[in-house]
Amino acid sequence: MTVFEAIEARYSHKEKFLPNPVPLADLEKIARAGLTAPSGNNLQTVRLIILPDRKSLDPLCEIVSHQALATTPAAIALFTDGSLTAEGHTSFDMENYSAAMENILLAATAMGYSSLWLDYPYFDAGRQAASKKLLGLPEACRLWATIPIGKPDGEGSRRAKLPLESRLFLRQYGQQL
Amino acid sequence: MTVFEAIEARYSHKEKFLPNPVPLADLEKIARAGLTAPSGNNLQTVRLIILPDRKSLDPLCEIVSHQALATTPAAIALFTDGSLTAEGHTSFDMENYSAAMENILLAATAMGYSSLWLDYPYFDAGRQAASKKLLGLPEACRLWATIPIGKPDGEGSRRAKLPLESRLFLRQYGQQL
Repeated sequence: MTVFEAIEARYSHKEKFLPNPVPLADLEKIARAGLTAPSGNNLQTVRLIILPDRKSLDPLCEIVSHQALATTPAAIALFTDGSLTAEGHTSFDMENYSAAMENILLAATAMGYSSLWLDYPYFDAGRQAASKKLLGLPEACRLWATIPIGKPDGEGSRRAKLPLESRLFLRQYGQQL
Repeated sequence: MTVFEAIEARYSHKEKFLPNPVPLADLEKIARAGLTAPSGNNLQTVRLIILPDRKSLDPLCEIVSHQALATTPAAIALFTDGSLTAEGHTSFDMENYSAAMENILLAATAMGYSSLWLDYPYFDAGRQAASKKLLGLPEACRLWATIPIGKPDGEGSRRAKLPLESRLFLRQYGQQL
């Protein structure tokens, strides 16, 4: 699938997934695409954990309640290692993680899977701490998201985009192409 | 170019560009790929300005000194509109911008161009204000980056990546695939 086809086809699958397993080789290929994203000062602070089956996912679902996570056959957990950014320096962890995330979503799409950028449960301090403990993450790490990956159980809903013209300008703000 | 080929081929071109103009149609295609990225709560806070020639770029280079920006035949300015996030709600502007950025970099790569995620000059309050004024951005907007896009003047340097194995785990932190 070309870059432009994958960008068009990607969507956030918030509904249920089918139980069909995702081969580990596919998950590894998708994860490697994520780790190849750019990072601030090339610090490569993003780390990934492949959760390849329900056995690895079910304990997480006791902390986070979401139908996509509750049904997906596999997921990738995305975290950054805060100890890699020198004290007093700007952390690019949020940019790094988001660029890696987009690569993961596009790679999953290109391989025929649906996926979801599932971040908001981990904003909660309690869920963040419990999920980190479950995954064995060191204190300096921050868990940003889990990304369900699998075949969708039915057509997922797509949300409308604003007309791109209203978000795209030429030379100056407000000037149309 | 496939998604995986573009992800592998993308790199940060910090050196000089050739003066060959980039067709406006190419810049528009790249910009549209950026605007198709996901966004928090589907708020689509990212906005883009195409800077298609040196006439539109030279004034910016009086504010920001960088050899890629000083030589590139075209660029895209990326900003978010802070007024779109309801007061008291979490802004996803940094995630939104970074996902749109990654789409732009991959789209440019797929079309045979080099590009650069050039953000750090705009962290400086003075350069942020001067660049916003030049581009006509409203007060509530934040300029995150300008992205030079063009044909490179010679092979750009690539920075080494850590072995992906050191950043990728299975089931738990520290557990190898």
